[in-house]
Amino acid sequence: MELSEDELVAALRKLLSGKHPGVVVGVGDDAAVLERGSVSVVLSTDMLVEDVHFQSAWTSARDLGAKAIVVNVSDLAAMAASPRAAVVSLALPSDVTSGWVMELYGGMREACDEYALSLVGGDLSRSDRVIVSVAALGEVAPGRAVLRSGARPGDRVAVTGALGAASAGLRIARSGKVRGDRDRALLAALLRPAARVGEAQVLAAEGATAMIDVSDGLARDLHRLCVESRVGARLDLAGVPVAEGATREDALSGGDDYELLATLPSEAFEAAAAALHERLGVTLSGVGDIIEGTGVVAVDPDGGERPLEPTGWDHFAQT
Amino acid sequence: MELSEDELVAALRKLLSGKHPGVVVGVGDDAAVLERGSVSVVLSTDMLVEDVHFQSAWTSARDLGAKAIVVNVSDLAAMAASPRAAVVSLALPSDVTSGWVMELYGGMREACDEYALSLVGGDLSRSDRVIVSVAALGEVAPGRAVLRSGARPGDRVAVTGALGAASAGLRIARSGKVRGDRDRALLAALLRPAARVGEAQVLAAEGATAMIDVSDGLARDLHRLCVESRVGARLDLAGVPVAEGATREDALSGGDDYELLATLPSEAFEAAAAALHERLGVTLSGVGDIIEGTGVVAVDPDGGERPLEPTGWDHFAQT
Repeated sequence: MELSEDELVAALRKLLSGKHPGVVVGVGDDAAVLERGSVSVVLSTDMLVEDVHFQSAWTSARDLGAKAIVVNVSDLAAMAASPRAAVVSLALPSDVTSGWVMELYGGMREACDEYALSLVGGDLSRSDRVIVSVAALGEVAPGRAVLRSGARPGDRVAVTGALGAASAGLRIARSGKVRGDRDRALLAALLRPAARVGEAQVLAAEGATAMIDVSDGLARDLHRLCVESRVGARLDLAGVPVAEGATREDALSGGDDYELLATLPSEAFEAAAAALHERLGVTLSGVGDIIEGTGVVAVDPDGGERPLEPTGWDHFAQT
Repeated sequence: MELSEDELVAALRKLLSGKHPGVVVGVGDDAAVLERGSVSVVLSTDMLVEDVHFQSAWTSARDLGAKAIVVNVSDLAAMAASPRAAVVSLALPSDVTSGWVMELYGGMREACDEYALSLVGGDLSRSDRVIVSVAALGEVAPGRAVLRSGARPGDRVAVTGALGAASAGLRIARSGKVRGDRDRALLAALLRPAARVGEAQVLAAEGATAMIDVSDGLARDLHRLCVESRVGARLDLAGVPVAEGATREDALSGGDDYELLATLPSEAFEAAAAALHERLGVTLSGVGDIIEGTGVVAVDPDGGERPLEPTGWDHFAQT
């Protein structure tokens, strides 16, 4: 199949392009937003497939359960929504033990407790690989969801934390050699990622105009944000925060980081960075600017400029 | 793996048994109910896995897309909720063509249009078999969701329409021989089932005390309703409506019918049957009574009684 995930999403959107009453944001954002009077309901879904999103060789059932929840919570966070509830569809091979399933549930519960959401139901079936599909429901005040489409020329582009750790962690997992605390931390970034729920609330309060979680790499997700906002961006490579032990390539094209990529009016950036640092001890790095036009221009540390392709993690291109 | 779906759901419930603020119904019903002030949000999820829930040999992409929506709408209907929105997680093998995916989307859209819900988002990944996981969101007035747990001794047990058609349709599909209109109708019952949204609203208005959709066969789903309500049931086999061309065994143990199984105070049954017939042209059949105790007793047409085992479609037991 020759189409990418983004191309299929574009096709889906075209096919579904009718207006839906009460739907504020549909296909193409981190999650859908439905206005429901005094509250907006935000709905997201994400599926983890064995051998595509995770390898059983180095992924415990407990970590898998937690991650299945966290990746959905991250989608809600990227809309500045508060997570409330989740349902899970599970497909399992016949050689899975009941102990394994209890561990999976245990990991889900840990993540649900951590992010204060309720796991309220599910569905179970057979498959020849493990598939964990979660749908998560969140809430946000009407009109307060931060979409991918709100970036404006002149806005600063910013990311929380540091990027590339999960990608470096994947390299360590594949090598089978874990040496020291730094390797363990990188591996944990891959296996037990965190969703930036509190960070998103701070950024929204400080005036973020657009937001997306960096699940498929900075290059790809910045492109997505630009496409939705009908703008371009200049990405200052020297400003991209690279996690310790990761490479700049990991930070640009690695997946699974779940940091937030946000745009803010340039005058709001400093206050947002200060608020994030003060309240949550998290660094906000300015990594570029939104410009008129389309596409992303990468500015090298020596000042050279080149177009940045939307390379990165395409779960659909993996086999 | 030695556990059944029902056993794993029971284990999941035990593990998740904490109280969740605002969650009225969690694991163990057709869908979860969350109180949200002036409205209750109902959330369900259901996954269709190739070679488990459907065979590509006789399932078109369009029918598959429609059915993935309908089985979720049916779960919402069984709570007496009105469908509002759905998100889809799709995993596809690499040999799937973009034309096939467009057909799948087209079938989803047809079903969404039919049941007035919006397909608002999704997620796409690779897999070696086709997997379509849908989560659907509905609404119901607070306190008006009809649960599995409300049946009381003395209630009549009733089913809408006729049962067993999908099971007979599966036999025809497997044989590869479709002869005449009746075979085509049975096949359509399997491939393009309908969700009983309007029927559920009528039954709820007429005082239904409990409700479940018959997705896994009357025997299994009646057992589930009895377990949730902590009651037993007498099932009058002569009263079970068998679809034309199906057998009584199809009606008892076949899956995929999506008719409604409801309990009503005995004095409300006749009025409910009349209302369903008058407003929707649908037959409501009395098939037994709720009794004290546990388990289901089948009453044969000759008056003989025997315990009815919860046999039927266990998607988790299939390989």
